[in-house]
Amino acid sequence: MLEIAPSQQAAAWLGAFDKALEAGDIAAAANLFVDDCYWRDLLTFTWNVTTMEGREAIADMLKATLAATRPARWQLTGEATSDEGIIEAWFTFETAVASGQGIMRLRDGRCRTLFTAMTDLKGFEERKGATRPLGVRHKADPEREIWSEARARETRELGASEQPYCLVIGGGQGGIMLGARLRQLGVPSIVIEKNARPGDSWRKRYRTLVLHDPVWYDHLPYIPFPDNWPVFTPKDKMGDWLEMYTRVMELNYWVATRCVGASYDEAEKVWTVVVDRVGQHITLKPKHIVFATGAYGPARPIDLPGAGDFKGELLHSSQYSSGEKFRGKKTAVIGAASSGHDVCVDLWESGAEVTMIQRSPTTVVKSDTLMEVGFEIFSENALARGITTEKADMIVASTPFALVPKGQRALYDVIRTRDAAFYERLAAAGFALDFGDDETGLLMKAYRTGSGYYIDVGASDLIIDGKIGIRSGVAIKSLTVKGILFEDGSELEADAIIACTGYQSMNETVAQIVSREVADRVGPCWGLGSGVKGDPGPWQGELRNMWKPTAQEALWFHGGNLALSRFYSKYVALQIKARMEGIDTPVYGAVSNARR
Amino acid sequence: MLEIAPSQQAAAWLGAFDKALEAGDIAAAANLFVDDCYWRDLLTFTWNVTTMEGREAIADMLKATLAATRPARWQLTGEATSDEGIIEAWFTFETAVASGQGIMRLRDGRCRTLFTAMTDLKGFEERKGATRPLGVRHKADPEREIWSEARARETRELGASEQPYCLVIGGGQGGIMLGARLRQLGVPSIVIEKNARPGDSWRKRYRTLVLHDPVWYDHLPYIPFPDNWPVFTPKDKMGDWLEMYTRVMELNYWVATRCVGASYDEAEKVWTVVVDRVGQHITLKPKHIVFATGAYGPARPIDLPGAGDFKGELLHSSQYSSGEKFRGKKTAVIGAASSGHDVCVDLWESGAEVTMIQRSPTTVVKSDTLMEVGFEIFSENALARGITTEKADMIVASTPFALVPKGQRALYDVIRTRDAAFYERLAAAGFALDFGDDETGLLMKAYRTGSGYYIDVGASDLIIDGKIGIRSGVAIKSLTVKGILFEDGSELEADAIIACTGYQSMNETVAQIVSREVADRVGPCWGLGSGVKGDPGPWQGELRNMWKPTAQEALWFHGGNLALSRFYSKYVALQIKARMEGIDTPVYGAVSNARR
Repeated sequence: MLEIAPSQQAAAWLGAFDKALEAGDIAAAANLFVDDCYWRDLLTFTWNVTTMEGREAIADMLKATLAATRPARWQLTGEATSDEGIIEAWFTFETAVASGQGIMRLRDGRCRTLFTAMTDLKGFEERKGATRPLGVRHKADPEREIWSEARARETRELGASEQPYCLVIGGGQGGIMLGARLRQLGVPSIVIEKNARPGDSWRKRYRTLVLHDPVWYDHLPYIPFPDNWPVFTPKDKMGDWLEMYTRVMELNYWVATRCVGASYDEAEKVWTVVVDRVGQHITLKPKHIVFATGAYGPARPIDLPGAGDFKGELLHSSQYSSGEKFRGKKTAVIGAASSGHDVCVDLWESGAEVTMIQRSPTTVVKSDTLMEVGFEIFSENALARGITTEKADMIVASTPFALVPKGQRALYDVIRTRDAAFYERLAAAGFALDFGDDETGLLMKAYRTGSGYYIDVGASDLIIDGKIGIRSGVAIKSLTVKGILFEDGSELEADAIIACTGYQSMNETVAQIVSREVADRVGPCWGLGSGVKGDPGPWQGELRNMWKPTAQEALWFHGGNLALSRFYSKYVALQIKARMEGIDTPVYGAVSNARR
Repeated sequence: MLEIAPSQQAAAWLGAFDKALEAGDIAAAANLFVDDCYWRDLLTFTWNVTTMEGREAIADMLKATLAATRPARWQLTGEATSDEGIIEAWFTFETAVASGQGIMRLRDGRCRTLFTAMTDLKGFEERKGATRPLGVRHKADPEREIWSEARARETRELGASEQPYCLVIGGGQGGIMLGARLRQLGVPSIVIEKNARPGDSWRKRYRTLVLHDPVWYDHLPYIPFPDNWPVFTPKDKMGDWLEMYTRVMELNYWVATRCVGASYDEAEKVWTVVVDRVGQHITLKPKHIVFATGAYGPARPIDLPGAGDFKGELLHSSQYSSGEKFRGKKTAVIGAASSGHDVCVDLWESGAEVTMIQRSPTTVVKSDTLMEVGFEIFSENALARGITTEKADMIVASTPFALVPKGQRALYDVIRTRDAAFYERLAAAGFALDFGDDETGLLMKAYRTGSGYYIDVGASDLIIDGKIGIRSGVAIKSLTVKGILFEDGSELEADAIIACTGYQSMNETVAQIVSREVADRVGPCWGLGSGVKGDPGPWQGELRNMWKPTAQEALWFHGGNLALSRFYSKYVALQIKARMEGIDTPVYGAVSNARR
């Protein structure tokens, strides 16, 4: 029997799909999918970040959106590939208002997963490459305003005589990348940052912090790190890069500025936001506000009985910057996830005596291992195969969240075998290990709760060697004058306790700035609704409230690690740009507002 | 008759060449070249930047260098191409100490032009891509020095307890790019800059200055401009880019620092250099010094009879920054090349009355025209054809200087026809046009004298329209109390005179800093020895003294526009690195020291 080439099969499917959509024949379109199918869409059909799971959900979505979307010009790009019976093909298409691209995966001639994502709004394409701005009018002109004068005028006027269309609250990596995207789309925006300099959100963290993800995963849009950049970026070097990026990408970036309060006028469709800029209160009137205040929300308060009695120093990891003053002191670190481990190492390197208090089991993966088996498509090898960071981002995004656990379980089977001796030694030291409720490991913990994992860059050996003490499996009863009292009656003396107890949901920041009522209406951010501890159902299929419309009009959340911020900043910016240009943006799908 | 494919012909030639060199058969190797042949070498055989012209010169060079060079592993890269009977092929090769690459062009099976350039020193390859530094040791270590601490220590120690191996005098674009190259090669270096901030050499120039070359020609190494960068970069934006580049490339860059004096100890092989750093005298002991003090040297002094009598303001273009204070005033601009035109426009835009005094004819090309016909390989179109900036640089470098005029003459035939009406109007306005002694236009003027041309970005229309007055063809007799007296007895009243009279050779900077004797021994920089006015013979085949060994050991010149600085900074850095590592670097070919 002759095999039909993958590209031919993909073209046949895409042709049939196009025809069905063109004809408005939703049943025929839905019939092109297998039973256990998924369609993930970023804005093109739904003006939402949403995944339709199953044929019925797809049909329902098309019923609601097809007429207005008017998709057309579906075209394969490059050759399709085939792996274990699954054909993968990349394509482009258009809607009434946008150009799009996507990835489909076929099984037995029908679609298993479809991914569609907006590329550009028609007529509002980013000016780059051949369409970049000229930068100078080649004509003498006495009225000419030179670049530096235009920038100075913009800086002077925006937020004073001119109002920003969008206010980005938080000028860390997320706010900076979103600010760059918005500027490229011509959306007048201000990014406010509480620190004195761009990049301080990295610089002010603990001394030894180095990115745990490799450089290929960490690029910012527009200006990738150069080829000589180290694999793991030290925090201060990252700070310098963000500072230069903010400058050369021409962001309107207000330092030493905090948001005091914000309220939305539902009738006028405008926010009133009061900010404190270097001590001066300024009222802004943006049409949209974006919370980019960190991947998570405010620090989770340290809520331990007897905390008032403790005579030593008690601080949250977000307040910890160096172990220097703890040299020769007894220290206890509560928490056994990333920051818990990093703070323990920093304290030990500073000559403190350190005990880690582990309250629940942790997923640990050695950095070298993760680099080799977990970052395959973000690497020099991938680049050599033509998989740029942009392509790798699309590949990651093309897998619906519901299908991620399966691949991750397989990955952790490999990892546990590979590093079995390491895990045995760690367990023997009294450290409680897990790989998540369903053995899916680090990435799923990151998506579900953003907590409970550590990429080992040295702490585990210190635990194995007994250089970092470990107390695990015993709950804390209370703090005492001298230290910590456990439920089993044992005590741990400590001159200082560092609570690496994580962060609250981003919507708690909304409660502080807007109102409790709006924060509750919007509901928590992050998490998939997996039904595991810390991520209760119902199943969402996407991260709650992130990068998409929320229950509060004109209020958005943007955040995540460098990779997520890089990728999703584009879609947040496109949604805001479309609204600025008066393009109709009917949102399909319920907004997230489940409590957790 | 069957045509033999270009790649086969190229492979056959390269095989025969390899075999002849391998056998030490210099006659056979030379015989593989046509009569009117050229071999341009950047360091690989000659440890020099030099062009052998003719078979005999090639044989002489091989006699002197072949034994030590030990070339091998000649291999074609990619497919050869054929155009009008000339076959072009790219190749790589190795020597005893380095890897190299090159481009050959064959005519009737023999070599017309050969270009060989060093890629890396073996064992000292730049760490990038797959060999980039890891950036963190994945192990806890109480002695750990974090990145910011290491940088702070380096900043503190270099130039104090530790001596730089290389001192780069001048921190404009040339010094910055060279500093970046040296750092990547691990050569401890300091770049000194007289201004307060990196980029000020651009910021402090006249208000309306915008790069006349397009972005594709202007990239810096390691961090190219992003895709959204304007075609023509405004001066202040360029300044900001240089400032961020200096920071993120981790240069040891001393601002507000001037070189007071320098002397070389021939016995100890070390320089003693006194610098004034923010008012404090510091003595440095580098092994090498590089003058990167500008494409040219100090401003050419304004030497006009009666200058003392003139009651208005008299300044050199290097001192001119804005026309604002000349609003409503009568101004005269002496000089009709680039800065003369730009200053005239700036004055006119500021509301001054302007007359340009043209002392000799000027080559003028419209910017749009030059973009379309002159920058073909530095463009989006070129990128789309796979010609990156790196490849375009190699293509430019592969043409020996002796063959450039022919191509340029052909280009200017096209340009003159295309813009005939424009040139007629300009001549009708009284402006004296030329295209160089031999009709080769702008580029050859740039190489030969670095003067006498203007890329029109608006001034010519003002001259045509009479908005900028023009006095041409009449010499200045003297200045008077009120203005300028010409040889024909006419007078021009002026409240201010701006002398756009250009710059002296870079070796005049050496005279100021080292000594007259060393400056004279080294001789002038720039120019090819073309035998035209300002560039007397003998013919050099290369730019005098630029980027290569000079008559003064351990003294180097680096400069040129962004493109030349980008390309040649690599070779300056490789020469200095080789000497630092004790690699034998026998220089073949006479150094430039002809007076001009």
